[in-house]
Amino acid sequence: MISFESDYNNGCHEAILQRLMATNDEKATGYGLDDYCAAARNKIREACAKPDADVFFLVGGTQTNATVIDAMLQSYQGVLSVETGHINVHESGAIESSGHKVLTLPSHDGKMDAQELSQWLHDFYADPTYDHMVFPGMVYITFATEMGTIYSLAELKAISDICQQYNIPLFIDGARLGYGLMATGSDVTLPQLADLCDVFYIGGTKCGALCGEAVIFPNPNAPAPAHFFTIVKQHGALLAKGRLLGIQFDTLMQDGLYFKLAAHAVEQAMRLREAFVAKGYKMYSDSPTNQQFVLLDKETIERLKRDFVFEEWYPVGNLMNCRFVTSWATLPSDVDALIDAI
Amino acid sequence: MISFESDYNNGCHEAILQRLMATNDEKATGYGLDDYCAAARNKIREACAKPDADVFFLVGGTQTNATVIDAMLQSYQGVLSVETGHINVHESGAIESSGHKVLTLPSHDGKMDAQELSQWLHDFYADPTYDHMVFPGMVYITFATEMGTIYSLAELKAISDICQQYNIPLFIDGARLGYGLMATGSDVTLPQLADLCDVFYIGGTKCGALCGEAVIFPNPNAPAPAHFFTIVKQHGALLAKGRLLGIQFDTLMQDGLYFKLAAHAVEQAMRLREAFVAKGYKMYSDSPTNQQFVLLDKETIERLKRDFVFEEWYPVGNLMNCRFVTSWATLPSDVDALIDAI
Amino acid sequence: MISFESDYNNGCHEAILQRLMATNDEKATGYGLDDYCAAARNKIREACAKPDADVFFLVGGTQTNATVIDAMLQSYQGVLSVETGHINVHESGAIESSGHKVLTLPSHDGKMDAQELSQWLHDFYADPTYDHMVFPGMVYITFATEMGTIYSLAELKAISDICQQYNIPLFIDGARLGYGLMATGSDVTLPQLADLCDVFYIGGTKCGALCGEAVIFPNPNAPAPAHFFTIVKQHGALLAKGRLLGIQFDTLMQDGLYFKLAAHAVEQAMRLREAFVAKGYKMYSDSPTNQQFVLLDKETIERLKRDFVFEEWYPVGNLMNCRFVTSWATLPSDVDALIDAI
Amino acid sequence: MISFESDYNNGCHEAILQRLMATNDEKATGYGLDDYCAAARNKIREACAKPDADVFFLVGGTQTNATVIDAMLQSYQGVLSVETGHINVHESGAIESSGHKVLTLPSHDGKMDAQELSQWLHDFYADPTYDHMVFPGMVYITFATEMGTIYSLAELKAISDICQQYNIPLFIDGARLGYGLMATGSDVTLPQLADLCDVFYIGGTKCGALCGEAVIFPNPNAPAPAHFFTIVKQHGALLAKGRLLGIQFDTLMQDGLYFKLAAHAVEQAMRLREAFVAKGYKMYSDSPTNQQFVLLDKETIERLKRDFVFEEWYPVGNLMNCRFVTSWATLPSDVDALIDAI
Repeated sequence: MISFESDYNNGCHEAILQRLMATNDEKATGYGLDDYCAAARNKIREACAKPDADVFFLVGGTQTNATVIDAMLQSYQGVLSVETGHINVHESGAIESSGHKVLTLPSHDGKMDAQELSQWLHDFYADPTYDHMVFPGMVYITFATEMGTIYSLAELKAISDICQQYNIPLFIDGARLGYGLMATGSDVTLPQLADLCDVFYIGGTKCGALCGEAVIFPNPNAPAPAHFFTIVKQHGALLAKGRLLGIQFDTLMQDGLYFKLAAHAVEQAMRLREAFVAKGYKMYSDSPTNQQFVLLDKETIERLKRDFVFEEWYPVGNLMNCRFVTSWATLPSDVDALIDAI
Repeated sequence: MISFESDYNNGCHEAILQRLMATNDEKATGYGLDDYCAAARNKIREACAKPDADVFFLVGGTQTNATVIDAMLQSYQGVLSVETGHINVHESGAIESSGHKVLTLPSHDGKMDAQELSQWLHDFYADPTYDHMVFPGMVYITFATEMGTIYSLAELKAISDICQQYNIPLFIDGARLGYGLMATGSDVTLPQLADLCDVFYIGGTKCGALCGEAVIFPNPNAPAPAHFFTIVKQHGALLAKGRLLGIQFDTLMQDGLYFKLAAHAVEQAMRLREAFVAKGYKMYSDSPTNQQFVLLDKETIERLKRDFVFEEWYPVGNLMNCRFVTSWATLPSDVDALIDAI
Repeated sequence: MISFESDYNNGCHEAILQRLMATNDEKATGYGLDDYCAAARNKIREACAKPDADVFFLVGGTQTNATVIDAMLQSYQGVLSVETGHINVHESGAIESSGHKVLTLPSHDGKMDAQELSQWLHDFYADPTYDHMVFPGMVYITFATEMGTIYSLAELKAISDICQQYNIPLFIDGARLGYGLMATGSDVTLPQLADLCDVFYIGGTKCGALCGEAVIFPNPNAPAPAHFFTIVKQHGALLAKGRLLGIQFDTLMQDGLYFKLAAHAVEQAMRLREAFVAKGYKMYSDSPTNQQFVLLDKETIERLKRDFVFEEWYPVGNLMNCRFVTSWATLPSDVDALIDAI
Repeated sequence: MISFESDYNNGCHEAILQRLMATNDEKATGYGLDDYCAAARNKIREACAKPDADVFFLVGGTQTNATVIDAMLQSYQGVLSVETGHINVHESGAIESSGHKVLTLPSHDGKMDAQELSQWLHDFYADPTYDHMVFPGMVYITFATEMGTIYSLAELKAISDICQQYNIPLFIDGARLGYGLMATGSDVTLPQLADLCDVFYIGGTKCGALCGEAVIFPNPNAPAPAHFFTIVKQHGALLAKGRLLGIQFDTLMQDGLYFKLAAHAVEQAMRLREAFVAKGYKMYSDSPTNQQFVLLDKETIERLKRDFVFEEWYPVGNLMNCRFVTSWATLPSDVDALIDAI
């Protein structure tokens, strides 16, 4: 069986394992205060072109979202997200668990519309009863989105402008940041993305690492909230052996490895996509990233399932919206096999 | 510099890295549903002599404490701990952050006294205003404790009996479980410990792993709380690549490796202890485990600090209570060097 | 100026003040353990035809919603409500503040559709990833709704049946219960409502009292959650001088005063409604209760505002959806004046 | 039976009921935006000599403590209190329920010692692991304390100075503020108290009102936290008919009624105290306020219980610490009767 099930069902890039081997006998201070973390922070600052950025390493995505959002919101504030946002659907209520409402906007293939955001904020403050409601304290978007889509630079800038106008921080969930930045046709660079938001993270788990997300507060005028270290600890997100995260990110950020891995995954996804389209299948969304959504009939599904693993998301009319995911670890020969089978 | 600073400043046992290498190219389902986790669960059940135990893998200690306690308490309940308990001191308020009070009892070198627990519970229910107070919903102890001490089987049994009498679950924080079970003079076995509590964990982070704690609900009549998987996710404690935890525990539980590693650390700690005592230094606590606390004068500290790393905890009269920690990774030659220097 | 602004801008029914006067010099135990509370509980049990119901008195609506919902949900559960539900809009995130997500369904003039509820629950459990999501732990509806509408007995029964099918408790927010039960055309009685839900409350604040909501757990097989008294205290909802609530509800439940007051308000609202309709104005919703929503043009609004107070909710096309609220305290002569002015 | 059980077992001062009667037919805006609240705020500002103070009206003490503390703490902060502080004992975990730890200091007859506070704060910041702990974000004291004691001006000033030194706000729980300020020998005035803290409240419930606590942020340079109104609503502490609170405080603050009522209670308590002491009974604490604690033997208790109600707190040796509470409503003739019986 060849799996296109997810981008977290593999191990990690072998350079990481080799580095873990090579450094295993060294002693290192815990809690992210070690030299590997320091080196990784510097490489990330450089890649973002933000020499003064605050950088923290957490373990997983849900944890990172809950910690960052809780740290930046006041108790009377909630976070704005599209309905399909990961925090609103697949985090078991982690945001509410720390006391904050997720305020929802419509999803457009996973994306937030700047105009709708602007209207929502306008309507909120125009409502005479707004002080009986949950205040908007942050805007949360994902890049790439859960549907595989990405924002153009202009779209990101439009959202960022509205956030600045209302003095609301913008948080970009980058669990799949690499795949988003290296997406076909993407016109957003990492430094540009860092310019346009107040906090974001570089997802390691889904792009080459065993685990780990690097949280970046890029703007020296809006650094990490006071005592963010302690807030991370309170959320159970402070890894004792922080070296595990430092070594991984130091390896991934070396010579652009992170971006090369992401580019590989996107390339394989595009091959898949073209094969489906060529055979007349309809794609469910216009994804330029490593997640491809295609509408398949029952027969095709049954046929493909004999040799391939993929997820059936939900029915669309008589067809099923199926997800095929590539990753940095996807073998071109596996894609060849699937293309042959289509 | 030779470090006796902590038991989490090293990498991991090399068998783990080799296993990660060997399995790296395999695909595995996420979230702990993979075969490695399944195998590790079985080995743990066997080691505990609890074939029906529920077993979950989480990433770190604070996270595990917060998740287990939140899962088992009702909203009006708190958790009983000695004042020096990790949850009461060094978790940045993680327990309170999920809404629960830590109710405190005196610490006796890190240990809870069964008699004092019994009295506390008696007094609570004798107080006519108790329904205006926080109800005791769980008893939390550490094994080994933060001061390196351990409970005897009789002491554990006494606490367990009181918990049963009041129908309060007993939770044993096993961040240093290996060192506790293999402590000099310990008369507690893993199956006995599993018999006497409702939930406990086998700490990986401090005993050979890169990260990971294995939570066990040993009693088939008192299984994990409903939807514990979802509660773990809500706490940001569900690792996407659960294989990382499964592989580590499967390796550690193979042929008793975990216990061998712990025994090695204890042996080195005892050599250290004897050397201190032989030279006339006074031990601060009577620790039979891998953490040794010794009262040193300024001169000795300065002399030892030239070549060794260790923590100065707090002043005791004119002396300083200093902590020396060994681990599975401590080299006997490093202990030799320290013994020579004493 | 004559006010139709709200049903909580008046004092209280004078029988309550007289009773407070008459009992003022008596001593009474605090926290709801007094004789007035006991008497009020019995009258409520009788009115509900539920001799074994658990009854508690809290102070206000948001507080009551937050306390009841928190008491009945597990940490991994959320509460289902229509989007316009009070808990989802006008409670400043009180539900999320105690850790629970509000899961939303479409609003139909403020009402939940049983079919949509059933479909939502079916889809939830059909989703293979549901254990990464927030579990539905309660259904919340308002009676009467925020839009003045009510459920028929058949509609209530349909929702109740689905809740039973999925073993999910049904909670009815009765902040305006009196106006709902006495609504024109209502076919629901208090005992029937009590039969169909697991917990509800009789709103005092908006129907004759100075403050106070009576929470009822009608079903002896599903009593109040353990230690609900303590949970009320924890939520800051336990009034020290509980007699203030007991005396009010004892007075309101005497000889059906509560229902007479509500019937009066509905009667005045119907007079208003007929007058608007007779003059050709379009009602925004089909409300048989004390809140009337009518679409007015700018000129009419300006003209009426000279002598009357009412709320402009939001624009609907060129018109404005305006709310006129009657209460137990509304003078028929004030309604006459408004009718003349229309 | 004559009751000395508590200071909240009576009704309210009759001037309040008369005022409620007189204003009952008027319409008033809800949520504390009415004219009565405005008038009461001004009277309070005048009594405090703080013309720019922010003033809010909440319903009860536990609610007020939870709301104020949650509003002023960051998520990583806790509140410092003596062990016997109301928030640490008798609020069912309301503070922890909103996510914050109560950090405890020893109690000296209910009072915090400035020197111990200073030492605690010094030790906290001297501990190299403090960023793994809960930060001190507020100091909470009660005036008068739960043991009936009060702080001298010098003691208050010492605590206030330490708070300023560490930039930590000082919160004074004034549930019994009147009895504290009018205590025999008290050298603290309301304006002085307002000068020395960042937030405090004037307790109504225990001193003449049916319910209600007036929260004051006296310092115009440290006003109420942003959107405190919304935080109050989120905590379920915003009374719809705010007039009920406004009318009560406007009445109590008129011509010093509040202080006269408190002085009366203290006078009666002193008569009681003198009678006990004259008869050779030992007072448990040196209380100059309306709560008197006296050590009684079994025989005396049984004898007094025939005609009087009072609380037995806890045994002290062979004796029982018994509490006798007077209030604004205590009849001198009832005190005469008790004095005769002693």
